[in-house]
Amino acid sequence: MHAQRAYLDYNASAPLLETARAAMLAALDAGGNASSVHAEGRAARRLIEEARGAVAALVGGVAEHVVFTSGASEAASMLTSPDWRMGRAPLRLERLFVAASDHPCLLDGGRFAPENVHRLPVGRDGLLDPETVRAVLAKNAIAGKSLVAIHAANNETGVIQPIAEIASVAKQAGALFALDAVQAAGRIPLDIADLGADFLILSAHKIGGPKGAGALVAASGLVMPEPLVRGGGQEKGHRGGTENVAAIAGFGAAAREAARAVDLMDGVRALRDEAERAIREIAPHATIFGAAAPRLANTSFFAVPGLKAETAQIGFDLAGIALSAGSACSSGKVGPSHVLAAMGHGEEASALRLSLGLATEVGDIERFATALRGIVARGAGQDIRAA
Amino acid sequence: MHAQRAYLDYNASAPLLETARAAMLAALDAGGNASSVHAEGRAARRLIEEARGAVAALVGGVAEHVVFTSGASEAASMLTSPDWRMGRAPLRLERLFVAASDHPCLLDGGRFAPENVHRLPVGRDGLLDPETVRAVLAKNAIAGKSLVAIHAANNETGVIQPIAEIASVAKQAGALFALDAVQAAGRIPLDIADLGADFLILSAHKIGGPKGAGALVAASGLVMPEPLVRGGGQEKGHRGGTENVAAIAGFGAAAREAARAVDLMDGVRALRDEAERAIREIAPHATIFGAAAPRLANTSFFAVPGLKAETAQIGFDLAGIALSAGSACSSGKVGPSHVLAAMGHGEEASALRLSLGLATEVGDIERFATALRGIVARGAGQDIRAA
Repeated sequence: MHAQRAYLDYNASAPLLETARAAMLAALDAGGNASSVHAEGRAARRLIEEARGAVAALVGGVAEHVVFTSGASEAASMLTSPDWRMGRAPLRLERLFVAASDHPCLLDGGRFAPENVHRLPVGRDGLLDPETVRAVLAKNAIAGKSLVAIHAANNETGVIQPIAEIASVAKQAGALFALDAVQAAGRIPLDIADLGADFLILSAHKIGGPKGAGALVAASGLVMPEPLVRGGGQEKGHRGGTENVAAIAGFGAAAREAARAVDLMDGVRALRDEAERAIREIAPHATIFGAAAPRLANTSFFAVPGLKAETAQIGFDLAGIALSAGSACSSGKVGPSHVLAAMGHGEEASALRLSLGLATEVGDIERFATALRGIVARGAGQDIRAA
Repeated sequence: MHAQRAYLDYNASAPLLETARAAMLAALDAGGNASSVHAEGRAARRLIEEARGAVAALVGGVAEHVVFTSGASEAASMLTSPDWRMGRAPLRLERLFVAASDHPCLLDGGRFAPENVHRLPVGRDGLLDPETVRAVLAKNAIAGKSLVAIHAANNETGVIQPIAEIASVAKQAGALFALDAVQAAGRIPLDIADLGADFLILSAHKIGGPKGAGALVAASGLVMPEPLVRGGGQEKGHRGGTENVAAIAGFGAAAREAARAVDLMDGVRALRDEAERAIREIAPHATIFGAAAPRLANTSFFAVPGLKAETAQIGFDLAGIALSAGSACSSGKVGPSHVLAAMGHGEEASALRLSLGLATEVGDIERFATALRGIVARGAGQDIRAA
């Protein structure tokens, strides 16, 4: 183990920002149940409402249409249900359209019957094609009763979808349009109205806030999914359960930082590009997935022929570098990436993901390059743990 | 405002224990996504598994059957669904039986159709009667396809149900039996096998842990509800979403304390009884709800004729005392208590709840008594804020 490690796995979870940590500590000390009317309860309530304003501001939204959840997966699970309401009237959605490269929390279709979930194909560059989406919707969508739910930027490749174009196609088909903005927030500008999204999904811990908070941000609040977590009527009845004040306060602090971070991505991009130069120099036959498409500045998803990602990841870890093979989900189980499969890459593609943040330094990239050189030199067939 | 306040609202949310706070801070600093296989991820994973053991131990359960959720409401929402599975085979539950005095997160029946939700009546003392429950189940239950879900101890009155008797009746009717142990944990001994429960619901923040963590503890894990929050397959597929490591670590620390707290309840009971002596002396016509039934040592729910609870609560708050009018839920909205209604008390019953903890001191009770004396003396008709 190395004394100082290089953490290059921001897309799995970004380190907690100091301002978010401070906001959490203040909230923990405030105590109280935010639904209580006494002073302790009102103090907790105030922290939540301040955070709501900050999260709304990050995406150009309105505070009253921000529903706090325990994370992005909960927000996605809330959305992927056929049971909705328009005001107080029940509304049933018949069809769900997801991108084939969506995160599993959207991809599996939630409570929709499998036969009512349609996957929108992506090209070899990872991009949805608006005309293909239009054709799939034309064939299957039921106006006013369909939901199109895609990611803004992919968690593995960083590929940024043509969001406004897909939104426009969805609108023309009379479908609701939801955007998983988990990886995009704080990295590209997001304005819910400009994007044409009816809903945005956000996660605190991907932008330097704590794990345990996320949000479903609605553009209008008129049409909403039925509550997923039911209880005492919190979050205007959209999400029951005592609010996680500390996590929400930390989310608010991180959202304020994320709004500024978008302008600082050129520095991150320079480091990522430096890492990719090193990859290409060390392994000239490496593939960098989605490299020709618009991508987040912080992400690189690459494969070196003959190098098994799982083994290489262990080698990097031993060299003091945290990165990932595919995404972090599924309890450490590593299988073929459904994102690469959706892009038409076979199971032979065993890829590693670098994902950087504002705290990443030149030294981290140098250490990554040194480790990669050693791992590639030792060869893919060898058990790296024995090296 | 008073410099030092008396916090007598533990049933709404207990103050964060120092050990829980320390565990959270350590987890926040550890960082990482618990599903990542690198060192940062494994450190997070270790904290979660330690907490899982502590939570299991609190209720005599097995760690591998503890599913962490974002709180008790989420665990209850997960349970109150007709869609279950036995191993991998789908299982559909047809009927849900809840106590009429259950918390709203069980009472509203979740995803069961309203006509399939039956309310089990409680008596004027707040207790379920096993023979009545037997009769209701005999009339309506479908063996192997029904769920009986009741609270162990009531959040408003502290009344403790005849848990093992109800469990036995449920079993004889072939129904699954789930116990909301949110208010009972750390206050009375809980052993999932002794109680005959198939499931227990727990909340971290009611036992001195943080808001944002709860658990569904299963006795066997053979029959489970379908996941509510879906995502990357965390929690053995029962609950998706990146784990809230800090809140879970804090929950674990609080669970260890709660296991010891049960033996310290006599001191809390003495203070509660002292408070009730003061209530009866100051307001001889006061009603203490459920006083003749087995009750948690820390709770007193009382009404003084002519005294409006909402107004009195504001008076207490101004006097530096945090207590509640009914439960804390529903965004501070105060309506008639459904618990009192279920006990046969009319809307005239406007009740206040005192709920104590291990940190409650004699001085807190004295201050409460002094404030009550003033509030009662000023009379119920008067606006207390003007006093």
